[in-house]
Amino acid sequence: MEVIVLAAGQGKRMRSVLPKVLQPLAAKPMLGHVLDTARVLEARRIVVVYGHGGEVVREALDAPDLAWARQDPPQGTGHAVQQAMPLVDDGDIALILYGDVPLIGVPTLQRLMAAASDRQLALLTVDMDDPTGYGRIIRNDAGKVTCIVEEKDASPEQRQVREVNTGILAAPVERLRGWLANLKNDNAQGEYYLTDIIAMAVADGLDVVTTQPDAFEETLGVNNKTQLAELERIHQRNIARGLTDAGVTVIDPARIDVRGTLTCGRDVEIDVNCIFEGKVELADGVRVGANCVIRNATIGAGTKIAPFSHIEDTTMGAACAIGPYARTRPGTVLGEDVHLGNFVEVKNSVIANHSKANHLAYVGDADIGQRVNVGAGTITCNYDGANKFRTIIEDDVFIGSDTQLVAPVRVGKGATLGAGTTLSKDAPAGELTVSRAKQVSIPGWKRPVKVKKA
Amino acid sequence: MEVIVLAAGQGKRMRSVLPKVLQPLAAKPMLGHVLDTARVLEARRIVVVYGHGGEVVREALDAPDLAWARQDPPQGTGHAVQQAMPLVDDGDIALILYGDVPLIGVPTLQRLMAAASDRQLALLTVDMDDPTGYGRIIRNDAGKVTCIVEEKDASPEQRQVREVNTGILAAPVERLRGWLANLKNDNAQGEYYLTDIIAMAVADGLDVVTTQPDAFEETLGVNNKTQLAELERIHQRNIARGLTDAGVTVIDPARIDVRGTLTCGRDVEIDVNCIFEGKVELADGVRVGANCVIRNATIGAGTKIAPFSHIEDTTMGAACAIGPYARTRPGTVLGEDVHLGNFVEVKNSVIANHSKANHLAYVGDADIGQRVNVGAGTITCNYDGANKFRTIIEDDVFIGSDTQLVAPVRVGKGATLGAGTTLSKDAPAGELTVSRAKQVSIPGWKRPVKVKKA
Amino acid sequence: MEVIVLAAGQGKRMRSVLPKVLQPLAAKPMLGHVLDTARVLEARRIVVVYGHGGEVVREALDAPDLAWARQDPPQGTGHAVQQAMPLVDDGDIALILYGDVPLIGVPTLQRLMAAASDRQLALLTVDMDDPTGYGRIIRNDAGKVTCIVEEKDASPEQRQVREVNTGILAAPVERLRGWLANLKNDNAQGEYYLTDIIAMAVADGLDVVTTQPDAFEETLGVNNKTQLAELERIHQRNIARGLTDAGVTVIDPARIDVRGTLTCGRDVEIDVNCIFEGKVELADGVRVGANCVIRNATIGAGTKIAPFSHIEDTTMGAACAIGPYARTRPGTVLGEDVHLGNFVEVKNSVIANHSKANHLAYVGDADIGQRVNVGAGTITCNYDGANKFRTIIEDDVFIGSDTQLVAPVRVGKGATLGAGTTLSKDAPAGELTVSRAKQVSIPGWKRPVKVKKA
Repeated sequence: MEVIVLAAGQGKRMRSVLPKVLQPLAAKPMLGHVLDTARVLEARRIVVVYGHGGEVVREALDAPDLAWARQDPPQGTGHAVQQAMPLVDDGDIALILYGDVPLIGVPTLQRLMAAASDRQLALLTVDMDDPTGYGRIIRNDAGKVTCIVEEKDASPEQRQVREVNTGILAAPVERLRGWLANLKNDNAQGEYYLTDIIAMAVADGLDVVTTQPDAFEETLGVNNKTQLAELERIHQRNIARGLTDAGVTVIDPARIDVRGTLTCGRDVEIDVNCIFEGKVELADGVRVGANCVIRNATIGAGTKIAPFSHIEDTTMGAACAIGPYARTRPGTVLGEDVHLGNFVEVKNSVIANHSKANHLAYVGDADIGQRVNVGAGTITCNYDGANKFRTIIEDDVFIGSDTQLVAPVRVGKGATLGAGTTLSKDAPAGELTVSRAKQVSIPGWKRPVKVKKA
Repeated sequence: MEVIVLAAGQGKRMRSVLPKVLQPLAAKPMLGHVLDTARVLEARRIVVVYGHGGEVVREALDAPDLAWARQDPPQGTGHAVQQAMPLVDDGDIALILYGDVPLIGVPTLQRLMAAASDRQLALLTVDMDDPTGYGRIIRNDAGKVTCIVEEKDASPEQRQVREVNTGILAAPVERLRGWLANLKNDNAQGEYYLTDIIAMAVADGLDVVTTQPDAFEETLGVNNKTQLAELERIHQRNIARGLTDAGVTVIDPARIDVRGTLTCGRDVEIDVNCIFEGKVELADGVRVGANCVIRNATIGAGTKIAPFSHIEDTTMGAACAIGPYARTRPGTVLGEDVHLGNFVEVKNSVIANHSKANHLAYVGDADIGQRVNVGAGTITCNYDGANKFRTIIEDDVFIGSDTQLVAPVRVGKGATLGAGTTLSKDAPAGELTVSRAKQVSIPGWKRPVKVKKA
Repeated sequence: MEVIVLAAGQGKRMRSVLPKVLQPLAAKPMLGHVLDTARVLEARRIVVVYGHGGEVVREALDAPDLAWARQDPPQGTGHAVQQAMPLVDDGDIALILYGDVPLIGVPTLQRLMAAASDRQLALLTVDMDDPTGYGRIIRNDAGKVTCIVEEKDASPEQRQVREVNTGILAAPVERLRGWLANLKNDNAQGEYYLTDIIAMAVADGLDVVTTQPDAFEETLGVNNKTQLAELERIHQRNIARGLTDAGVTVIDPARIDVRGTLTCGRDVEIDVNCIFEGKVELADGVRVGANCVIRNATIGAGTKIAPFSHIEDTTMGAACAIGPYARTRPGTVLGEDVHLGNFVEVKNSVIANHSKANHLAYVGDADIGQRVNVGAGTITCNYDGANKFRTIIEDDVFIGSDTQLVAPVRVGKGATLGAGTTLSKDAPAGELTVSRAKQVSIPGWKRPVKVKKA
């Protein structure tokens, strides 16, 4: 089996500098979806036909398992497939896919492939309530497909046919090679149409068999951003359905976006309007509050993430309490029962079990031990304008509010830092460390008065 | 009138450790919805039939007005009702409800009950476009119900019937008791089916009368998380409709979630994606910005809550200006015209009229007077690592930026605290209090330079 | 051409103190939408008919191009139009619009106007699947409109008619004047109905021609908040469609709200749940993350705004990195490549190219030069309780964490401020300035212990 993916369309109607097949669906290029589907099919070879200006496509998605064929200038779908033919082998079945038909599914294609053989061309068709504009599947009295007729060439009777061509087909390579060589471009557009091979196959005595997709949407193509948005929603709805079918409580399946892989344990609950990007794993009993954004993260069992949290490249242990408005940035590793509260940012830091930073804090490049209390307004001064340094806070430390830890610095086990301390040297274990000016009051002091503007 | 609620289903398809009837809809267990509906009907007694492992159901929802009957092992709906019969009295009408059919409505049930008598069994039915899989209501030529036929036993003609059984019915207890005793389990599943009593009622000469629900969705059952999500949306759409019908401006009825009771005055406006939990009251003219989460709160007239605010167990007076990104936690009581700005957290504190905390502050365990200005970065240090203490700020105080108030501490009326003060003792009224080190500059100082990594 | 807009309805079903036509759709009064549409038509005169209590309407929307006619008490639509007649001129065509039918479109009205003449009354009609309750368009055998029959007066045959009256029409002023003078109020409500002029026009030998709107929704009226919410969604869906058609990547067209004018360059991407208010311009390649609120802003090419950002009256240069949780308030002007990170608020400040404030900061009334690093927790103390002052930070300054800049104050070029500095006097260029108490540790210090509550 060989897969040929047509990806040469310029996509002017996308009104974008990005080639059409690179337009993202769920944050992955449309062509990437098609290639990943082809990979699941375990094709012997995947040939991508790219077009003028398509080098950026190749650069974006090249991989060892791909072969690339250039079509320039574009002269129709038949011509496009022809460019791929030198790269595929006789004896195989070739499956033709499209870089702008991203939702095509594996079971649908497996069924199509099963119907193809060296004696049979398999064609994916769909029944449409309104087939206007599509190529109709014409069958003889015995029900055998005889040809595809385009809208403009169709008789009134043929226009009544609701079964239409999707363009997706599987055919024996040797035969396909022959038909493509015989295509004519004597039409208004001067193009070589792939659909013309159907009649050739019939003429050659092959059976043209049809299969239908699991869902109509699998065959939808994208020509503009409006259609792209429609497919994005269909795709997300399918993902949400997969989650609820698997037992995840999704409070509103129309308000969840998964752009990558979301793996959920038992009794996971996801509130409205959350976004998951990259690879996210939520263990048993995790609850994600409304409006969270979580990218590349592993969240331990029973951890609760309150609304408005933004989690990125983070590992969290079990039973943590995060947010609301907590932000973890790359390199954050939290132990068990760690609490991060509102307006707290953590970056490239390890925080061990039972430690807390509940309010208004910046923890960057720090190693924090167990049972540490990071007071409100605490800031690790990890950057001196040129270099970054680490802050080490050992177990059982209490950091008073509004403390600055000027890294590199270490706070010893069980130490206490007084509120408002600027810690520029290490703090000894077990002791109270402060840097505080004397509190003075100024009797007779007069408040400023409002100055009138001229 | 007696209500029997069947709640013994294990609900394996929910894929959850929580029993099915405890799965939450709008944050309340499905069974809780059914029980609350039964309560509105003022039933003399509510009997809940629970099953194997259902003690957790009883623990979660037990109340003085409930009786509990155990069904173990499960042997069908008829068997389930039978377990409840020792707890209900002859002479009453029994209404059978289901713990996993949570949206059943009071007017629908009142109509059903009105149709039941000691001579009439009342059955709730619905007409379905596609009745496949449901028990059909079979009527004689006079239009009288004669029996219910299950899909598998139905003749082709009977399968054409679109009126189906919902399982919800009301019947005289004495009769019901007799029918249940005569149920047979000679079927494939070996179960006792409640629907078999319909034919018995007819045989006994009772009229089986049918009523239909106000809305089809009232009869929907939940067997998996996909259906649970669907019902959640239906329920939320109904709530949103109730709000707009009552004159609330809801910017997007598909993007509001109410999990409890939301009471709104005149001219309330709620922007997109807000969540209300528990008991929330919004007085006249309140405006809630996008993406707010509000739980158990009373908001005074004309108060404006800007986007991304998170309000919990809070009372706010009139004309307050809250957010964006303001968070109030339990025990927050705000007077009139209080301003809380971005990245401000308030907990267990009272803030009197016309006071403001506009930027980046933590106000915890504090009593703040009128016309107080809490500067940016102010933090009440209410916790010494072991105990919590209160901060008292009297009227007309001006707290400079980045001040720490080390509780217990009092700031006298009209006092001013300089920026950066660590206030560890009381500040006298009317005076300026500061704790500030001398500002020094170091000529010839060289900035750190970037160190190359090895 | 003259436009008469009926805006006198009291709208009791809105349950609001605000007159119905002032109820906002996409943050603009419904009547404002209709007036703006009339303005595009370049009417010679726009007459608004307002009613009892409608002075607030006039105050809210008055403009030099509007004339106002008072209808009090209300006596029907015909009576309302009559009040406007003294203000319009014979020889013109009058177009009748409604202040509570806000989505009526310009092309639809242009087509209607083109059909009207001194010999033709043009009527906007729609075909409804269920016309119940609407006035039916009655035609003779030649297909000519003869009259409009209201539901209650319609024969069973007439009720089958699916073409209904929208109330929107265009007629020659002179004729209209005559018909209105002859209206009778001998009906149940005792009102003068505008629809009665149709039969008069026919009787006078005019042709009544009909046109249909581009979309049915253009003719929808609003009588309650439920309908208002429905039209809000239709309007937003149309705006979203316009954006995607123009090449904007809108991740979920059902989750974007535009309340004003949103102008987008090429390759703009807008993630879910964003709100745009006032006049917003996004240059090429701008990406707006989820849940952002942007009001009156110009955003430079390639700038990325991360989720949960709140942008207001702001100008940003190219290639900025904003948020998450960044808030800019009125008067914010950012150069190129400016970074504002989480929990950062900027107000009335100018920040030049390549400067950064990445964490937990309040920058108000400040002028910040190029390549400045504003450390975490930095606060400009711009307000002394009576007056506001500016902070000047010159190029290449490094502000250490948790610094307070007590304005008015200036930090010279290339200066460095140490962490925790309270800067109350200017900092010299190139030097390190600090205000720091000595760090001391207290051996033998004992931590507080938990006190048991009585």
